[in-house]
Amino acid sequence: MANPRTPWAALFLCLLISASTTISHSWKPRPRTPCRELVFYFHDILYNGQNYNNATAAIIGSPQWGNKTAMAVPFNFGDMVVFDDPITLDNNLHSPPVGRAQGMYFYDQKSIYGAWLGFSFLFNSTEHVGTLNFAGADPLMNKTRDISVIGGTGDFFMARGIATLQTDAFEGDVYFRLRVDIKLYECW
Amino acid sequence: MANPRTPWAALFLCLLISASTTISHSWKPRPRTPCRELVFYFHDILYNGQNYNNATAAIIGSPQWGNKTAMAVPFNFGDMVVFDDPITLDNNLHSPPVGRAQGMYFYDQKSIYGAWLGFSFLFNSTEHVGTLNFAGADPLMNKTRDISVIGGTGDFFMARGIATLQTDAFEGDVYFRLRVDIKLYECW
Amino acid sequence: MANPRTPWAALFLCLLISASTTISHSWKPRPRTPCRELVFYFHDILYNGQNYNNATAAIIGSPQWGNKTAMAVPFNFGDMVVFDDPITLDNNLHSPPVGRAQGMYFYDQKSIYGAWLGFSFLFNSTEHVGTLNFAGADPLMNKTRDISVIGGTGDFFMARGIATLQTDAFEGDVYFRLRVDIKLYECW
Repeated sequence: MANPRTPWAALFLCLLISASTTISHSWKPRPRTPCRELVFYFHDILYNGQNYNNATAAIIGSPQWGNKTAMAVPFNFGDMVVFDDPITLDNNLHSPPVGRAQGMYFYDQKSIYGAWLGFSFLFNSTEHVGTLNFAGADPLMNKTRDISVIGGTGDFFMARGIATLQTDAFEGDVYFRLRVDIKLYECW
Repeated sequence: MANPRTPWAALFLCLLISASTTISHSWKPRPRTPCRELVFYFHDILYNGQNYNNATAAIIGSPQWGNKTAMAVPFNFGDMVVFDDPITLDNNLHSPPVGRAQGMYFYDQKSIYGAWLGFSFLFNSTEHVGTLNFAGADPLMNKTRDISVIGGTGDFFMARGIATLQTDAFEGDVYFRLRVDIKLYECW
Repeated sequence: MANPRTPWAALFLCLLISASTTISHSWKPRPRTPCRELVFYFHDILYNGQNYNNATAAIIGSPQWGNKTAMAVPFNFGDMVVFDDPITLDNNLHSPPVGRAQGMYFYDQKSIYGAWLGFSFLFNSTEHVGTLNFAGADPLMNKTRDISVIGGTGDFFMARGIATLQTDAFEGDVYFRLRVDIKLYECW
């Protein structure tokens, strides 16, 4: 007597499961386990008027009246920097680059060092071919800062995730080294 | 006689349901019900050379030959502004800020006021810890303008959604207040 | 004797299917079939000091010391351009525009032409109402370059995808025409 009802129980359970799957798309917490993890360093050498050959970055914008005066002192507020930095697998500037970090940042805090970043990682090696695109705030005085991986192409087709930045070293105003821990949560 | 086939009917239905769930990832309309909604105001006080202490924003870029002449008059075409604005829960500039809106916009229309925005909301309070990252066009003469929430970190881990901007008030060229209705459609 | 177990087999299979569906959100490759495809051209006419009426773009930032000297020569490193370009359905500059491409790019390579793009397509026609937002690297010497569709609004609500850029024509430093093949992989 119980038998005829069992399939319906199975179906009912199945519907329940399917329904909860569907709803989870918009409502339920998704797993926070990365589908891919990568660690890189990138090396930013700011042009100071005398280091043309080594420089990988230069200031391109600043307020007319404020560059050397009001807003930009002392925390560079308004200075915008364009960069084309080598990416390496370790913290050595002279290691063979595995790609380039290209984009910009600008300082956007008056009372502390803080910046906003928009840039890409470009890979074209035996290891990776493609790009990762990033955007987000970089409050430089925090030990680690999280920005968004907003997209990717090639090997990183449609990627989304979080990149954790850490200032690994700096020398005066000219050399900065960032460690980047990339965790992708959407892989295709 | 029908009984032995019922489980297969259940399985078949189940497969159908699962299949449609799978296909829906790329093809079928997803629910447009936000998984989270937030409303904020942010307050932009542009540096005019005399309001250093109050200013939260400054022009940083403009064409060499055009800043005060051809392209930038009368709709500021090419002017780029970096900002670090307080975020409040109501429309009062003097309410306790719940976070900072940091980033940039630039005017990009010759015959009307229009801009493009790239910025973040940074929260570090009992209420929220984390960031939301935004990008999109801001045709300022429209009553409401939609931009994209392109990512988030911390409490807003991996968020995506739509932010609707509304100019809540402005005074001359110096003070702007924006109301932002944030609707997240991807929550993790 | 086998019958009573069949529903459980169905349920088990069903569970398996549901489970694999759930896991696939973060782990398994998703289908790379676009849910929407669009092709457009956009036309960038750079202001050269004498073409105010036709110009759709102007340089707005460059290093103080480097604009006409060190870093910006010969590959425009550090030059930032804001644009408001017409979008057409074919490669004719004089075809009726179906929307506007508004945003910015800046040159970010010292030894070759390369740029980084942040912009939107704005549509307000019988065909499309809404915006698409883009970001990514544009290594100009490659025949095709992929950037990310990082979001959308209106008809393109929550869109994500890939846009393939191709330089369709250029005249000197003033006129550029880009062909854009947009493939959306997330539609709502």
